[in-house]
Amino acid sequence: MKQSFGPKTLLYPHPVLLVGTYDGTGRPDVMTAAWGGICSSQPPSVAVSIQRHRMTYANILATGAFTVSIPSAGQVAEADFFGIVSGKDADKFAATGFTPVRGDHVNAPFVGECPLVLECRCTGTLDIGVHTQFVGEILDVKIETSVLDADGKPDIEKIRPFAYDSFRREYVSMGSFLAPAFSAGRAFLPRKEER
Amino acid sequence: MKQSFGPKTLLYPHPVLLVGTYDGTGRPDVMTAAWGGICSSQPPSVAVSIQRHRMTYANILATGAFTVSIPSAGQVAEADFFGIVSGKDADKFAATGFTPVRGDHVNAPFVGECPLVLECRCTGTLDIGVHTQFVGEILDVKIETSVLDADGKPDIEKIRPFAYDSFRREYVSMGSFLAPAFSAGRAFLPRKEER
Repeated sequence: MKQSFGPKTLLYPHPVLLVGTYDGTGRPDVMTAAWGGICSSQPPSVAVSIQRHRMTYANILATGAFTVSIPSAGQVAEADFFGIVSGKDADKFAATGFTPVRGDHVNAPFVGECPLVLECRCTGTLDIGVHTQFVGEILDVKIETSVLDADGKPDIEKIRPFAYDSFRREYVSMGSFLAPAFSAGRAFLPRKEER
Repeated sequence: MKQSFGPKTLLYPHPVLLVGTYDGTGRPDVMTAAWGGICSSQPPSVAVSIQRHRMTYANILATGAFTVSIPSAGQVAEADFFGIVSGKDADKFAATGFTPVRGDHVNAPFVGECPLVLECRCTGTLDIGVHTQFVGEILDVKIETSVLDADGKPDIEKIRPFAYDSFRREYVSMGSFLAPAFSAGRAFLPRKEER
């Protein structure tokens, strides 16, 4: 039996996206967003929703660029801080000791300490209620070599990304391998002789 | 040191969203989407990106509605199946034994067996490359009472949602509580006497 909870921004898992930008004078800022994710395969694109009073909102409009850094479980306090304070009130990089690194492809800084970063060129915006969604074409993905496995592929157990639980307002770690995609579901395909 | 991987649709975690729709004749379908997530707090809204050749694409345009069902770890094979085959070729509900349940608020079916479902009224579309993003206002969230804790709140360890790793094409389980949000980061606030 299901119980109704009414209109809520609830699903699992929400990502924890650290959105890096410069303002018009080149000052770096970073904020935490949980409303976002990949929005197209080609061109590879990511969407992040930002409220209009945020410094990040003005910064993306000024530069046309942003980065998305994915934090590791050991960086959860820094990631939370980036969502608590405004760049108008604090230099968030200085406060945490994290390093703003200028992107190679876009005029935006990523978090040098994060294991995985996306460099994005803003290709569009969409106002959705109190948020504006920024769509970014992903020009490059950069991964810390220490989180690659022996085959040179990113290892989620080394990256240790985490998720946000919006109902309980908690961060939740990732677990481990569950099943292969585009494979586990083949059990439900009709048997060949029945086709 | 970071290594460039070029333009890729990579971040962690991607959600696994089962998008339920009716076609113009009332036939239920469901497909799996990983490109999506919450996109506005008010009105509470979720975005899912769907390719234009998908049955779901035509169905949402026909009905103006969709649901999002969040599967549990024990439903990973069914969730994968919903992404492997097209509703044009199979009755995916019949093949898995899952139950299409008509929404209370919208003309779309959700997966009766899933622990959490969103009923959504489509409020807009945005073409982003090969995908079209459908924005849905969340009219109701329904949660299976068996996954609520003693306080009546959804318990992520009972829901057992999982994520999609797009690099390895694998599903990954969720772990456990990591840190409180809007709290863990307060360690980086300036001490009061320094303000």
